[in-house]
Amino acid sequence: MIVSVIGLGLIGGSIALDLKQRGFADKVIGVDNNPMHAHQAKKLGIADEIQDLRTAVESSHLVILAIPVSACLKSLPQIMDMVDQQIVTDLGSTKEQLIESIANHPKRKQYVPAHPMAGTEFSGPQAAHSGLFDGKCSIICNPEDSDKDAVNVISDMFHTLQMRCVYMDAEVHDRQTAYVSHLSHISAFALSLTVLQKEKKDKHIFELASGGFDSTVRLAKSSAEMWTPIFHQNKKNIGKVLQKYIDTLQQFKDRIENDDHEGVDDLINDANDIRRVLDEKERTEAETIKNAKRIRRA
Amino acid sequence: MIVSVIGLGLIGGSIALDLKQRGFADKVIGVDNNPMHAHQAKKLGIADEIQDLRTAVESSHLVILAIPVSACLKSLPQIMDMVDQQIVTDLGSTKEQLIESIANHPKRKQYVPAHPMAGTEFSGPQAAHSGLFDGKCSIICNPEDSDKDAVNVISDMFHTLQMRCVYMDAEVHDRQTAYVSHLSHISAFALSLTVLQKEKKDKHIFELASGGFDSTVRLAKSSAEMWTPIFHQNKKNIGKVLQKYIDTLQQFKDRIENDDHEGVDDLINDANDIRRVLDEKERTEAETIKNAKRIRRA
Repeated sequence: MIVSVIGLGLIGGSIALDLKQRGFADKVIGVDNNPMHAHQAKKLGIADEIQDLRTAVESSHLVILAIPVSACLKSLPQIMDMVDQQIVTDLGSTKEQLIESIANHPKRKQYVPAHPMAGTEFSGPQAAHSGLFDGKCSIICNPEDSDKDAVNVISDMFHTLQMRCVYMDAEVHDRQTAYVSHLSHISAFALSLTVLQKEKKDKHIFELASGGFDSTVRLAKSSAEMWTPIFHQNKKNIGKVLQKYIDTLQQFKDRIENDDHEGVDDLINDANDIRRVLDEKERTEAETIKNAKRIRRA
Repeated sequence: MIVSVIGLGLIGGSIALDLKQRGFADKVIGVDNNPMHAHQAKKLGIADEIQDLRTAVESSHLVILAIPVSACLKSLPQIMDMVDQQIVTDLGSTKEQLIESIANHPKRKQYVPAHPMAGTEFSGPQAAHSGLFDGKCSIICNPEDSDKDAVNVISDMFHTLQMRCVYMDAEVHDRQTAYVSHLSHISAFALSLTVLQKEKKDKHIFELASGGFDSTVRLAKSSAEMWTPIFHQNKKNIGKVLQKYIDTLQQFKDRIENDDHEGVDDLINDANDIRRVLDEKERTEAETIKNAKRIRRA
């Protein structure tokens, strides 16, 4: 199969590498507005060829959009106008608006909205690497609105990436990612800003930071180019989730200030239940890799 | 040198292992209120002997307190009453109240308040491991109030652990750790609580969580036994820091809800400056290990 990847950064580059190495794609055509990224991607073996968007779409069987969600919103309708029999998917973090944008397109059934739940805080072709998706979960939204064959191709693609597929409504997807992905990023950005602000007066404050700080703030390295459009497209859900997070922080603050030790103990003991979730996740990831290998062999 | 370690959990156990392995301690005497922990510590080679507090203090040259800060506040004055020539240190996360509690003790100069900036989200003797402190920073507070020889022993101890020492006023220490350590923990606890609350209605919400979520929430596994007393003892600083964090989150929320894309870009671009800090930290940690080895050889 010939696969075009639009956007050769962390996500697009990583998917291109594994689809080629694992035999899903016979050829990867790369498309990138940034000539430097296109050049790097060719050099790093991410793409076999670099082409312009129209030529790439016309000469491939599968088109994968891996660009910021704002750019997706502009490009997806244009790409749908170009396709004949091609299947189109995107990997963006928000789904409702994008699906709405081509709801009445005559080729709608050839489009499969997806979101692989994997990434790092780095960006660009040099951040791309094999194995980024191994063991993780990929969401396919509103599968009933796509051709069954198209959905099968995309789920095969995710199994090649050693992922498990979860099918859900776009509205549920956008609400849930606000909790487990978008909120984590805002909490890290805000933590970074709070301590950087303090650094202006206390120059050596970061001397004291240890591994725990690094861990909670790591995502604050993520780029505005990618995240501002996500926050914008998902503002309805993010507003609600941020309010709940702020309320919980306020609860901590009140109980600490009122010497309510038992109340603080209760909050921490409840929060500790995350151990169950993280242990379960670890087991699921190992299981997913095993199952994905089995499915591919079958 | 004979070293007594009071509290054989993650911190006490890890320090005992490396002080013995690296030749700083000829013998480690362990003390723990929890007989199970004492038994495990003996079995894991953390302590050569288990003794009661008074016998341990009386038969050692150096006494290290590695217990929750609330327990420290009770035990330190009792231990200072027991010592003859012994040097005493503690490794707690808050310093002002503890120092205040023995400010007028006749043996005050034999006490060196310290805080090694290292840890994990796990606890108990089984979480203890060699190398926990390598490359990190250790704070020694108000060194002018301790005997010079006592300070030298403690800084030698930290160099054995391959740490660098930073000297500062206890008041500055408590303010700065509120930013770079205590806030990270509360942000993780609150994040955990926010998503766990949502899980009650959306059972499969954690299916979507990926590495970024794990990273920001990891510290929420930490125990109430350790953290409630820290938040209590440092409530003045934590209250202020939490308010700044909440204000920054509110700023994000307002800008996202008002479609102020440029304003959100500005916040994220400013937060990205954390890259400089984290890169610098990585360099410093490598340098610290090199220097600590050089100092020990000299």
